[in-house]
Amino acid sequence: MRSNDTIAAIATPHGKGGVAVVRLSGPQALAIALRHLSAGTLEPRHATYCRFDELDDIVATLYPAPHSYTGDETVEFSCHGSPYVQQALLQTLLDDGARLAEAGEYTLRAFLSHHLDLSQAEAVADLIDASTPAQHRLAISQLRGGYAQRLKEMRQQLLDLTSLLELELDFSQEDVEFADRSQLHTLLEQLIAQNDRLLTTFALGNAMKEGVPVAIIGSPNVGKSTLLNALLGDDRAIVSPVPGTTRDTVEGMLTIEGVSFRLVDTAGLRETDDTVERLGIERSRRAYDDAMVVVHVVDTPQDVEPLAAQMPQDGKRHIVVQNKCDLGTDSPTTGALHISALTGEGIDRLKQALVEAVDQRSLDEVLLCNVRHRDALLRVQEALRAVESGLESGVPTDLVAVDLRDALYHLGSITGEVSSDEILGNIFGRFCIGK
Amino acid sequence: MRSNDTIAAIATPHGKGGVAVVRLSGPQALAIALRHLSAGTLEPRHATYCRFDELDDIVATLYPAPHSYTGDETVEFSCHGSPYVQQALLQTLLDDGARLAEAGEYTLRAFLSHHLDLSQAEAVADLIDASTPAQHRLAISQLRGGYAQRLKEMRQQLLDLTSLLELELDFSQEDVEFADRSQLHTLLEQLIAQNDRLLTTFALGNAMKEGVPVAIIGSPNVGKSTLLNALLGDDRAIVSPVPGTTRDTVEGMLTIEGVSFRLVDTAGLRETDDTVERLGIERSRRAYDDAMVVVHVVDTPQDVEPLAAQMPQDGKRHIVVQNKCDLGTDSPTTGALHISALTGEGIDRLKQALVEAVDQRSLDEVLLCNVRHRDALLRVQEALRAVESGLESGVPTDLVAVDLRDALYHLGSITGEVSSDEILGNIFGRFCIGK
Repeated sequence: MRSNDTIAAIATPHGKGGVAVVRLSGPQALAIALRHLSAGTLEPRHATYCRFDELDDIVATLYPAPHSYTGDETVEFSCHGSPYVQQALLQTLLDDGARLAEAGEYTLRAFLSHHLDLSQAEAVADLIDASTPAQHRLAISQLRGGYAQRLKEMRQQLLDLTSLLELELDFSQEDVEFADRSQLHTLLEQLIAQNDRLLTTFALGNAMKEGVPVAIIGSPNVGKSTLLNALLGDDRAIVSPVPGTTRDTVEGMLTIEGVSFRLVDTAGLRETDDTVERLGIERSRRAYDDAMVVVHVVDTPQDVEPLAAQMPQDGKRHIVVQNKCDLGTDSPTTGALHISALTGEGIDRLKQALVEAVDQRSLDEVLLCNVRHRDALLRVQEALRAVESGLESGVPTDLVAVDLRDALYHLGSITGEVSSDEILGNIFGRFCIGK
Repeated sequence: MRSNDTIAAIATPHGKGGVAVVRLSGPQALAIALRHLSAGTLEPRHATYCRFDELDDIVATLYPAPHSYTGDETVEFSCHGSPYVQQALLQTLLDDGARLAEAGEYTLRAFLSHHLDLSQAEAVADLIDASTPAQHRLAISQLRGGYAQRLKEMRQQLLDLTSLLELELDFSQEDVEFADRSQLHTLLEQLIAQNDRLLTTFALGNAMKEGVPVAIIGSPNVGKSTLLNALLGDDRAIVSPVPGTTRDTVEGMLTIEGVSFRLVDTAGLRETDDTVERLGIERSRRAYDDAMVVVHVVDTPQDVEPLAAQMPQDGKRHIVVQNKCDLGTDSPTTGALHISALTGEGIDRLKQALVEAVDQRSLDEVLLCNVRHRDALLRVQEALRAVESGLESGVPTDLVAVDLRDALYHLGSITGEVSSDEILGNIFGRFCIGK
């Protein structure tokens, strides 16, 4: 991607509306604009009502470099939202020397001119894709830089560590070892702990972004699919009185109080000789492993107690649900939500329990929610542990320094201190054109 | 529709994009905006980068009254184009005292504050709906007021005429008649002629807007449907070797060099006892009557000459096409386009002939293209003729004055000097929300 040319694109959503915005950015932006505007000039950031050729009456606004979104000179044309006018205006700019912007190219330029770091640029795409309050909160916090700040602090600590180690290297000719390595160790342990802490937030961050994974499990025929449908208000899963009806895992998205839940209905876990059913049970186990919240469905009060007793301590939140309360007159069993998936009784209480299973307080902390970042932090973790064991086992300092540089590299790849065309291509390729 | 409250709507097309614009207009616009912006104030027409609550980082622009689109104080928020952000920002404004704008309400307010006359307001909707260059040209010319200017001149003449007549009324007590009515007559004749001239432009204006109506006619089985399909590059009409296959009229839109054509394939005109087919033939006659351009299809050279000889002088443009040139080795017949609807030979020449059949020069004139306006002008015509015959037959001047006021009323209804809630409701109801 060249960045010395002038790019143009329709920035507003596709289609017909009251107004639309076409954005022109690059060194020739003002020159191209003035060839088509009835206004003799554009004052910086002043919304100027004028004609664009014979095409339309528009409002043009100049954002001079470097104080524009991209950092380059930018003119925004706010025209009538007719698809014809939008296309014709864009085409005029392209015919007059601008090039059609590639997906995400405006934000890429913002990154290249240091207006945003790479994690903030990614947050722009997340912000545009956000469809729930929780997703939005994650993205806007990442865009506003709390997350980038945390990474910057870690980077500074890593640089401090490197300085200390290099100090030792400077003296290595004299074949002495620093008597006191304690400062170095303390810094390293702090860094490892901080990195690990950030990594542990990924489960919640990712759940906020992609939906909290919820597995609905239980014996065959306790009404798991009916429950999924009741939660979704939908006929997503096939329901029949035959035990083992569900073979695939069936998914559905549900938003409760601004948080998305990705519900997975699973095949009942039981011994079976049916190959297809066995495959389904395998998938159920995977859904269980992936879940943050597990909803255990039983249909008799007798099943509740033993289940509650053997509840695994696996870091997941477990909710026990006693279904089919419409059938009997059993009094509610302690430790279980009494519901009827069929009549809808108790479904609201279950939704409330799902929301409470997510620790909403942690939403205000810095959360890791990006798979690329998680991968980078895992590499950082690996490198720091290599540093730690290198220091302990007396590996030569210059070899330890290699691992430290590795950690710096991977940490820097998150915010874009180091980046490659491939990384940038992957990141900005998921943007829409015009952003 | 109240106009003292503050209205808000998303002005850009529906959906996800790089940016979106939310528009807030009314007496409380700035006050509401400032309660949510990190900026302490907004300078007129200055694009201010700031935060909107915790929701988004946006650009806000104030358009003070009366120099805004609506005439009221207006604030535009340019936010990230996420559907979530757009909705949440709008909802915040609604929760803080704004009301959701009705369809077309911004433009209605522009009309009510005399920023646009009614014909210009209608042109805004036409401009947004325009999908061909010709439609766009019509709408932008109407928006920029050439058409409104013409109507204004006519209105002035009508007022002059009324003054003259009222002068006569003032003297009516003295039971004398103005000796020289020639000035009055001259004015009246000019006005009638001008009104008639504008009315005759409706056929072309409407054709530009809705598509030039083209009827494809000819004997059964000469290949009319194959020709329609060849023009459209499409399998719109059912084609079979059985004469009389087409019973309904089949339509298709085709844009050539920026002009839309509404092609109508008709049932072949022939005597028949088949009731269904007879109904089809009736429709064909109607399609012929409505057409601006008639394409006569024949399949033998022998048919061309007699057809050309008896071509009706009905103000329509006639094109004779000799089809199935792939079958024979006939040399091209004078007066006919030699084509093969089957192989596509000559189709481009036919398209060229269709474009030439429309007098493009007249596109630069003021054209009547709105059915509501045509109806009004027909009422004006009727009233003016009543005035004319009234004057000729010596009807009392005060009765003639009633007809004159009628003419004034209908002329004024076009530009909105007179209007009713019903008229306004009809007009602005076809707008999108946010314009």
